[in-house]
Amino acid sequence: MMTLAEVKEFLDREFPQIASNGRYSVEEVNPNGARLRAAYHESQIRPGGTISGPTMMALADLSLYVAVLAAIGPVALAVTTNLNINFLRRPAPRDLISECRLLKLGNRLAVGEVSIFSEGEDEPVAHVTGTYSIPPR
Amino acid sequence: MMTLAEVKEFLDREFPQIASNGRYSVEEVNPNGARLRAAYHESQIRPGGTISGPTMMALADLSLYVAVLAAIGPVALAVTTNLNINFLRRPAPRDLISECRLLKLGNRLAVGEVSIFSEGEDEPVAHVTGTYSIPPR
Amino acid sequence: MMTLAEVKEFLDREFPQIASNGRYSVEEVNPNGARLRAAYHESQIRPGGTISGPTMMALADLSLYVAVLAAIGPVALAVTTNLNINFLRRPAPRDLISECRLLKLGNRLAVGEVSIFSEGEDEPVAHVTGTYSIPPR
Amino acid sequence: MMTLAEVKEFLDREFPQIASNGRYSVEEVNPNGARLRAAYHESQIRPGGTISGPTMMALADLSLYVAVLAAIGPVALAVTTNLNINFLRRPAPRDLISECRLLKLGNRLAVGEVSIFSEGEDEPVAHVTGTYSIPPR
Repeated sequence: MMTLAEVKEFLDREFPQIASNGRYSVEEVNPNGARLRAAYHESQIRPGGTISGPTMMALADLSLYVAVLAAIGPVALAVTTNLNINFLRRPAPRDLISECRLLKLGNRLAVGEVSIFSEGEDEPVAHVTGTYSIPPR
Repeated sequence: MMTLAEVKEFLDREFPQIASNGRYSVEEVNPNGARLRAAYHESQIRPGGTISGPTMMALADLSLYVAVLAAIGPVALAVTTNLNINFLRRPAPRDLISECRLLKLGNRLAVGEVSIFSEGEDEPVAHVTGTYSIPPR
Repeated sequence: MMTLAEVKEFLDREFPQIASNGRYSVEEVNPNGARLRAAYHESQIRPGGTISGPTMMALADLSLYVAVLAAIGPVALAVTTNLNINFLRRPAPRDLISECRLLKLGNRLAVGEVSIFSEGEDEPVAHVTGTYSIPPR
Repeated sequence: MMTLAEVKEFLDREFPQIASNGRYSVEEVNPNGARLRAAYHESQIRPGGTISGPTMMALADLSLYVAVLAAIGPVALAVTTNLNINFLRRPAPRDLISECRLLKLGNRLAVGEVSIFSEGEDEPVAHVTGTYSIPPR
């Protein structure tokens, strides 16, 4: 399993666009999941004062990737095959926190779920399930 | 129904972040759907030379919104409630084209599907279904 | 909120096909969810000794319905609008238990998740999210 | 590729529960898809006179399996990994017809979409996307 520092270093090296963007950061990894943060920025705002759906989809996709990465080691070419998102509540104009949990870690597929929260809130703003295809090792 | 020019003007006014970003453009609207384009930009690239998943999710979400908008008129507060995406093939490093078709346009919910193509290719790189909740009118 | 006895009575009256089938039973309802059981029967078996996908989909759909029912009262005409299932592991040839939790209970839509287990196992065999449309009251 | 007769013979042999049930029949297979029928039966009816969701989910799942089978040959152990269904309109109390189209046929995963119609209607009652995992050959 990779440590938080190893995951961060790997992402900085392999996904420099994410690092240079500065929005998404990994806060914790564990054997079954990960917690990430998407920093609030006004460019994400949509009519009605809510944060855009794609911001949450990108956060969920990255959260799943990080959880898979932490569990199986540095595999840059794992790819999302399916992602399903339910938008539940309008997020407040502040940081988003994702809590990702792996439901299955197989040889070929990993499946996980992600709950996304406005920081400080108990009720999720979105819920995601996703599947990653793991290349032969 | 809104014309292509009306849809573009509405998006520019209500979603200035999308216009200023300059990536996504609406190419056609019709009573049952829409066609959009996501201009290629190197910031979207991921390891292996592929375009990021969130770029495709954002294109699909906007395509569904545009199709709903064109069909029901200017309703800024229609919101996505569910989006499901299957990633099918690695997109080439060039523009993406979305073809969106509404499957249902009800009083409360609109459901549509979106096929996303690398420009000039016949086989889709991703397929999306999504649901929009329509506010009471 | 409806009690377990009230939910059972309502289902027996409104969905006699389910009762006469005798496979599915409601074991618990609470303000945020429900637990159901699908009795094992050899007609559900598929090649490889596994239980059929549709058995699990039917159990998940009914579990969501029961959770919505218990939370909002007897509304026979609430209808599923979306259901997404990930099959995680081959279920053993025995009863299935579903644990359903509501993620959102709005005026128009309810969203929930369901984890399905082979009785006595800790790892889910399937995970489901679904949306119910609630008729105006 | 398998012919219609070969597909039927294979299903009868490997899935005798489906054949004995007598509800589902394969009407056509082609290199990219399949068309199936679910015979109407009053046990499928739900409050409001509509056909149950699980009947449609089972039809969609079987349609995807048949399309994969016809395209790759007799592989009993191909398994569904994900299925997403949107319920669009209340089906009439008559036969359901499914039109399945494969979106991708890879070495490890096949993805397809299914539109389900009440016989004789133009507008689909449900739309499904699903993924099958193909065992190593």
